[in-house]
Amino acid sequence: MLLSEIARDIGGTLAGEDREITGASTIEEAAGSDITFLANPKYRDKAGACAAGGIIVGEDLGLSIPQIITPNPYLSFARTLELLYPEKSHVPGISDMSFVHPDASVDESATVYPFVSVGKNARIAQNCVIHPGCVIGDGAVIGRSTTLYPNVVVYDRCRIGEHCILHSGVVIGSDGFGFVWDGSKHFKIPQKGIVIVGDHVEIGSNCTIDRAALTSTRIGSDVKMDNLVQVGHNVTIGDHTIIVAQSGIAGSSHIGKSVTLAAQSGVGGHITIGDGCTAAARAGIANDLPPGKVVSGFPAMDHRQWLRVQKITKDLPDLLKRIRELERRFDALSKD
Amino acid sequence: MLLSEIARDIGGTLAGEDREITGASTIEEAAGSDITFLANPKYRDKAGACAAGGIIVGEDLGLSIPQIITPNPYLSFARTLELLYPEKSHVPGISDMSFVHPDASVDESATVYPFVSVGKNARIAQNCVIHPGCVIGDGAVIGRSTTLYPNVVVYDRCRIGEHCILHSGVVIGSDGFGFVWDGSKHFKIPQKGIVIVGDHVEIGSNCTIDRAALTSTRIGSDVKMDNLVQVGHNVTIGDHTIIVAQSGIAGSSHIGKSVTLAAQSGVGGHITIGDGCTAAARAGIANDLPPGKVVSGFPAMDHRQWLRVQKITKDLPDLLKRIRELERRFDALSKD
Amino acid sequence: MLLSEIARDIGGTLAGEDREITGASTIEEAAGSDITFLANPKYRDKAGACAAGGIIVGEDLGLSIPQIITPNPYLSFARTLELLYPEKSHVPGISDMSFVHPDASVDESATVYPFVSVGKNARIAQNCVIHPGCVIGDGAVIGRSTTLYPNVVVYDRCRIGEHCILHSGVVIGSDGFGFVWDGSKHFKIPQKGIVIVGDHVEIGSNCTIDRAALTSTRIGSDVKMDNLVQVGHNVTIGDHTIIVAQSGIAGSSHIGKSVTLAAQSGVGGHITIGDGCTAAARAGIANDLPPGKVVSGFPAMDHRQWLRVQKITKDLPDLLKRIRELERRFDALSKD
Repeated sequence: MLLSEIARDIGGTLAGEDREITGASTIEEAAGSDITFLANPKYRDKAGACAAGGIIVGEDLGLSIPQIITPNPYLSFARTLELLYPEKSHVPGISDMSFVHPDASVDESATVYPFVSVGKNARIAQNCVIHPGCVIGDGAVIGRSTTLYPNVVVYDRCRIGEHCILHSGVVIGSDGFGFVWDGSKHFKIPQKGIVIVGDHVEIGSNCTIDRAALTSTRIGSDVKMDNLVQVGHNVTIGDHTIIVAQSGIAGSSHIGKSVTLAAQSGVGGHITIGDGCTAAARAGIANDLPPGKVVSGFPAMDHRQWLRVQKITKDLPDLLKRIRELERRFDALSKD
Repeated sequence: MLLSEIARDIGGTLAGEDREITGASTIEEAAGSDITFLANPKYRDKAGACAAGGIIVGEDLGLSIPQIITPNPYLSFARTLELLYPEKSHVPGISDMSFVHPDASVDESATVYPFVSVGKNARIAQNCVIHPGCVIGDGAVIGRSTTLYPNVVVYDRCRIGEHCILHSGVVIGSDGFGFVWDGSKHFKIPQKGIVIVGDHVEIGSNCTIDRAALTSTRIGSDVKMDNLVQVGHNVTIGDHTIIVAQSGIAGSSHIGKSVTLAAQSGVGGHITIGDGCTAAARAGIANDLPPGKVVSGFPAMDHRQWLRVQKITKDLPDLLKRIRELERRFDALSKD
Repeated sequence: MLLSEIARDIGGTLAGEDREITGASTIEEAAGSDITFLANPKYRDKAGACAAGGIIVGEDLGLSIPQIITPNPYLSFARTLELLYPEKSHVPGISDMSFVHPDASVDESATVYPFVSVGKNARIAQNCVIHPGCVIGDGAVIGRSTTLYPNVVVYDRCRIGEHCILHSGVVIGSDGFGFVWDGSKHFKIPQKGIVIVGDHVEIGSNCTIDRAALTSTRIGSDVKMDNLVQVGHNVTIGDHTIIVAQSGIAGSSHIGKSVTLAAQSGVGGHITIGDGCTAAARAGIANDLPPGKVVSGFPAMDHRQWLRVQKITKDLPDLLKRIRELERRFDALSKD
């Protein structure tokens, strides 16, 4: 498409000649008919050497290549990618190599690929795409325009919202981890609740989200979860929260809205994390956090404090030497 | 069912009027015909305000709602959940959308859902439920009354015991991680052993348990494993051991009986952990542990020591100041 | 097979009588017609008590059982395992319970088991074995002699090399984790790149490797990855690199050749790790590393420094006491 068409669709201004754009790439690799972007003025030098067919920028940089000027170049570039590489379309209908229970309801605009199993009273709404190998339990609900990539499992009665994306291997609604010792063995506490996932949620590959014991594990809307994340039973997660890869949240914890849990972090059980908190990578949160806190380390502490602590920890051998020197000086003093 | 029937079935005593119970809930949410429980006398206040149709308690609290008195209210409540919400029943038989090798044996009381693959000489015992998408390798054995949730994979020749529950995405028997450098590349050490899982074992979603190189990786009976746990080749795990989410055990380690490994913990290779040990969340165990030890941290140390160390670590900036002050005072002294 | 045949095939010398060998086991358990090996001279005592039918050793130890002498007993034993336990053979052909798009190409020497889905324009080369439940996306390529164990998913257009082994539940090519805040919600940055996996790569169960945003995530040849490893978008991993279980690499990082990332380690985003580096278990790498570095801890530091730091950290309560004592002595001094 033409640069002028892109500029119009993303709400930007074209400065320079109009050209045909056929792809997108990074500022280093873009060439010919590729479009690229510059979000951080720090990398302006790269823009000067850029051979792209066009570049999305935050202000007119007087470059020799055509520029599209927008207030948020990164967001505009993401939108441009959508224009250039539209989502693959799927032919509606149910593969005759799939199994759909006669009492299930699948909207006729949905696509159900082969080897999908849809349980009794399950409901798949408009425009859903259910890739091969997915299993949708009895009474489960998949909201409209939601995509389940291959081999996603949604256990009985769990509910996924609209416009969600669940990547391969995601498991929604397996039993929460609850046992009580009966004197000779672990007695399983029946897990009879469900999982409710909001709208516009994306869940990465092989994540696991357990059903509640009695009520519901709840994932808010616009929550984005990276791969291999674990969410325990009865957890609630507020809207817009981001959870990066390999993090885990133990049972009955409540994560606020717009929280960020960076990679490989962990939250203990029965903990409340306020809105807008950020946990750095590897943080292990063992106590409640008021809104807006930024924490690091395990057990998690204020991020700035952690930075200071880490700096000193690294220098502990030196610190030990200084203490020994003080002791030596003292001993010498005492001998006087 | 009636409160009196529940009391009889769980071996408790009903104090108060008999009522019809139709569900169960938490002490805060229970109302109308719900039953609930109070395990911790600390929360007695909540019981006073509780609107449930009945409550299971450890002693007569003189509440206005009917009470069932039992020695272990939490266990009794778990049993009540089983009464109120019986397991879904499954129609025995093999789906004609599944593949069962002609030399496999599937008991006629077992249920095999669509898209299941059962290999040569595999054996599925009485009352098993094999959900869609499971793959059972050649010569593998699934003991009676065991449930495999969707998309579980059991590699060739591995053996699962009786009354086990394997949640979605569990992989039993993938190759152990073993290579030897041959001068130009990593030569794969063939992994020819198996995995043997005991009885009454529950394994959480997307756990991975590797087959032994030559002998067997062994999971004892009544072991309970949360989601996303990794068990390396040749590991043995004793009966009743609990392994919480995202923990990992490296190859050839031996975990005793009734051990607890809390979330995100790790055990190095070739390590022996005695019976009854507890590793706190995030513990990383790099050395053998005698029976009964409680450890924390990485490298793991005695839990009480770790608590003290953590307290001081947090205050390291203050400690550094005190050392500086001592040095200053000394220097001032020397100048005198 | 005879010991003399094994000796010939692995390039070793037989010392002692020739015997028929039917299996292999550990030095402790080998008996009768089993063969075993001794790689570490430290365990020579065990060899003396060994009841195996034959033993592979690095030099003539004058044992009473027949010895095969080779320069690298462990490697030779691995080769012997291949001789004794040849890989299972698979009947070529496509199961009529699978779905192969008419525009896909599957070599006639490949085996495609039931419930496999092969997308449009996908290509499966000679001698591949595609186990049940695998899903191969549109335009994806599987190189010759590669094995996909059950329930592996390869998203559209991703490319797997030759002689690779992907264990169950591996996900190749799910979307990278990229969003930009648009003022009211997280806007998804379309992930339009691919994943390219080299030759002789082994990937453990339930690993997840994300596709690049625009270009490609690249896994070099002879890379070996244990279970539950996460690889973010745009990451590149050099040849021969080893990544142990539950480790994670954040987006856009570059891992050199012959690197070892031990279990549960992590690498931050946009980081470059030089060839031949080693990260100990649990290391969290937050900065670039020059070639050959050995690091531990989080944030990762030189391994020897980390050992010193850990030793002192454990003794912090003692250190605190010593500081208090110094302060006390000073105060006493001042009072004089």
